[in-house]
Amino acid sequence: MAELTHMDKSGRPRMVDVSEKSDTRRNAVAKGSVYMAKETLAKIREGGVQKGDVLSVAQTAGILAAKNTAYVIPMCHNLFITGVEMDFALDEENAAVHITAGADTVGRTGIEMEALYAVSVAALTIYDMCKAIDKTMRVSDIRLVRKSGGKSGDFAAD
Amino acid sequence: MAELTHMDKSGRPRMVDVSEKSDTRRNAVAKGSVYMAKETLAKIREGGVQKGDVLSVAQTAGILAAKNTAYVIPMCHNLFITGVEMDFALDEENAAVHITAGADTVGRTGIEMEALYAVSVAALTIYDMCKAIDKTMRVSDIRLVRKSGGKSGDFAAD
Amino acid sequence: MAELTHMDKSGRPRMVDVSEKSDTRRNAVAKGSVYMAKETLAKIREGGVQKGDVLSVAQTAGILAAKNTAYVIPMCHNLFITGVEMDFALDEENAAVHITAGADTVGRTGIEMEALYAVSVAALTIYDMCKAIDKTMRVSDIRLVRKSGGKSGDFAAD
Amino acid sequence: MAELTHMDKSGRPRMVDVSEKSDTRRNAVAKGSVYMAKETLAKIREGGVQKGDVLSVAQTAGILAAKNTAYVIPMCHNLFITGVEMDFALDEENAAVHITAGADTVGRTGIEMEALYAVSVAALTIYDMCKAIDKTMRVSDIRLVRKSGGKSGDFAAD
Amino acid sequence: MAELTHMDKSGRPRMVDVSEKSDTRRNAVAKGSVYMAKETLAKIREGGVQKGDVLSVAQTAGILAAKNTAYVIPMCHNLFITGVEMDFALDEENAAVHITAGADTVGRTGIEMEALYAVSVAALTIYDMCKAIDKTMRVSDIRLVRKSGGKSGDFAAD
Amino acid sequence: MAELTHMDKSGRPRMVDVSEKSDTRRNAVAKGSVYMAKETLAKIREGGVQKGDVLSVAQTAGILAAKNTAYVIPMCHNLFITGVEMDFALDEENAAVHITAGADTVGRTGIEMEALYAVSVAALTIYDMCKAIDKTMRVSDIRLVRKSGGKSGDFAAD
Repeated sequence: MAELTHMDKSGRPRMVDVSEKSDTRRNAVAKGSVYMAKETLAKIREGGVQKGDVLSVAQTAGILAAKNTAYVIPMCHNLFITGVEMDFALDEENAAVHITAGADTVGRTGIEMEALYAVSVAALTIYDMCKAIDKTMRVSDIRLVRKSGGKSGDFAAD
Repeated sequence: MAELTHMDKSGRPRMVDVSEKSDTRRNAVAKGSVYMAKETLAKIREGGVQKGDVLSVAQTAGILAAKNTAYVIPMCHNLFITGVEMDFALDEENAAVHITAGADTVGRTGIEMEALYAVSVAALTIYDMCKAIDKTMRVSDIRLVRKSGGKSGDFAAD
Repeated sequence: MAELTHMDKSGRPRMVDVSEKSDTRRNAVAKGSVYMAKETLAKIREGGVQKGDVLSVAQTAGILAAKNTAYVIPMCHNLFITGVEMDFALDEENAAVHITAGADTVGRTGIEMEALYAVSVAALTIYDMCKAIDKTMRVSDIRLVRKSGGKSGDFAAD
Repeated sequence: MAELTHMDKSGRPRMVDVSEKSDTRRNAVAKGSVYMAKETLAKIREGGVQKGDVLSVAQTAGILAAKNTAYVIPMCHNLFITGVEMDFALDEENAAVHITAGADTVGRTGIEMEALYAVSVAALTIYDMCKAIDKTMRVSDIRLVRKSGGKSGDFAAD
Repeated sequence: MAELTHMDKSGRPRMVDVSEKSDTRRNAVAKGSVYMAKETLAKIREGGVQKGDVLSVAQTAGILAAKNTAYVIPMCHNLFITGVEMDFALDEENAAVHITAGADTVGRTGIEMEALYAVSVAALTIYDMCKAIDKTMRVSDIRLVRKSGGKSGDFAAD
Repeated sequence: MAELTHMDKSGRPRMVDVSEKSDTRRNAVAKGSVYMAKETLAKIREGGVQKGDVLSVAQTAGILAAKNTAYVIPMCHNLFITGVEMDFALDEENAAVHITAGADTVGRTGIEMEALYAVSVAALTIYDMCKAIDKTMRVSDIRLVRKSGGKSGDFAAD
């Protein structure tokens, strides 16, 4: 089984050296969900139809966060993000908001942490803006769904 | 049903005015989990017994993040955090790391976002440090478990 | 005439000591405008009626910025912001967006820089989102319009 | 008329994908002014001749800010700034400080927001350092004056 | 001998809980030095007499840094800094710049890290601005010289 | 003797333009030491053997700091760090922790400030975590020991 590459031989953490890797176009897509009371989702939807504000704030927060990933996740490389897109789907059956973030770069290392962090921050922003009416929300299933570019090849979750 | 207090009357987002609330001692505890392959958990545990590094990096990242919450979550108030503690439990049966963060303040507004954000960043740090060996990890069940202090009273999840 | 209080006696900059001032409730309101081509304003208004996105992103950026003021303006004190509200008015006659930001704190020092910085960042965010269609926009008249609380007393611009 | 490129087809904000654009040498120059009481300008000038401190603090704040632009303006791309220069002109006739910032990069996207943000932060720093003696200062005419590099070609304001 | 209070009973790091400590006026003074070639000091002095720029940039960087201490040093509490002053002494005999930073707060925990961090960042700023002409500079003797306020009492280095 | 390149011809600070320099692989190694009471070192060592926590927190803080260098040191260029490694040596004879940081990039400008800043922040983190038991610690001898890549050639301290 592969080693944890963020550890050096003595077991200390490090930021692994990617100097010898080449610049390639890379993309990653992550997803996650905020589960809530049906009434909370209705409030967001109502806002969504008329003003879109909770989701718009969450989207702005997520995109800003993507650019900050390497300053928050200690062993993650900083890089130039060439694009970020986010999408929100309201799921009445499961009383959830499903969040998708896609991030692009042209660089020496992958961009999956940026996509995952954008989803996490957007989810917590929704939580923050609705917590006065619902304290039982839950952020779940934050995961990588697709990744392309780089030597390790493409990845797609089942 | 209560209104979304982060919205003003015209439906625009705002940071709600808490000037008239009084300083009280407040505490919040949040939890969340990273689900992974059994082999990944074994790698972390191995490190955990001998060196503790993945969890130590995650803990440091989570504590630093707690202090940055209001600079990441747009409508969240900045405040003085008087203490943060984190705990990690390795769950072999479910192949998961369960993360707990408790945060304290003496202030005009609650500290649940700080605890939730500390858990989220610690979870993503674990993800980042293990992603070379496991791309199917999943961060789930980030939620508030307990909250005390403030006018809205105490809360405890079931 | 009063001295520049940010300078010590030898003429070096410093963050003036406010330890002996007392905590009082303080408020500040600032305004500023983005002047643009009529077509650009029409594009924003169109978005404003249907989706509100340019102004919503600008508002989120401005509120986040308010909390960061002291980390950007060197001699400005960090403080707990107890509330921020922003408002945008579309002015077809002058082809401008007029921005207002109000900020509150309970502290030892005033909060006018937070209101002014929120207006500035919201204005630049509008600029950034429209610059592909209009390179001649101009941000002007960023100023304090009202201030209350503190020993120096209240202020209102003419 | 061109579309707002920061909006995707559904009208949500995004960071536009510049992966396919090529690295070119780019430069942007922005200007802005702080208008004030004649006595305030005299105080700055006096400092300027003997110690230069207000302008030196403003210049340092502006250059630091330029590097932070993408972390403040939500849809702006982060990039490597290869150089920043700033200049301040004292205008006694109009009782103003005129600020110029020039920024350079070699990258996939323009650098005008960095120049505009450097000017804005330098202007607010002057405001902050002089506000104890003058509450009627006004920051105005923040605008792009020149831009070169990139596919959209060069631009020069009239 | 006292325990390391930043460790909890299981040996994990934490931000110690200071909720029960009371707000008191606190001050800390730190010092440090940059040793360099005599020619480098002459260059700084020359600038110092005429324009003061290297030291002015270092001072601005140090004051900004003081406010950021808790976001850089993981277990350090964030707090409201009520004042920061810095001083630079040029020492020709030892070819050194001696840096002093004093910081004030009214809070539950001491402010020595803020003073130490301000000195460190000012020292590195001098290093950065002179490194093109001198690669053998050395930052040394960063230490606490005085501290007052709080339950643990006053401290003064010999 | 060479000029201070961070100054423009009029003596104002600037970020020097490196647009015309070419991307090369660059490395820098810096060192520094924390001197302390023998009992303090024993406490760290004890932790080091059993749990490693003080040094692990310091290492995480140092690596995160390296990525933030250009946002703290005003005239320093931001760049992509391709790798960071840190090492800590406990020196009982001199009652010191010796810290080494190595940083890599592929870029237009050197990476020595990143290595020096990582060492400084790791040193202050050790200071912060031990200051409850030892107020006489001293951070010294922060210096560049090796540098390679770039037009100015390689450097090695004696």
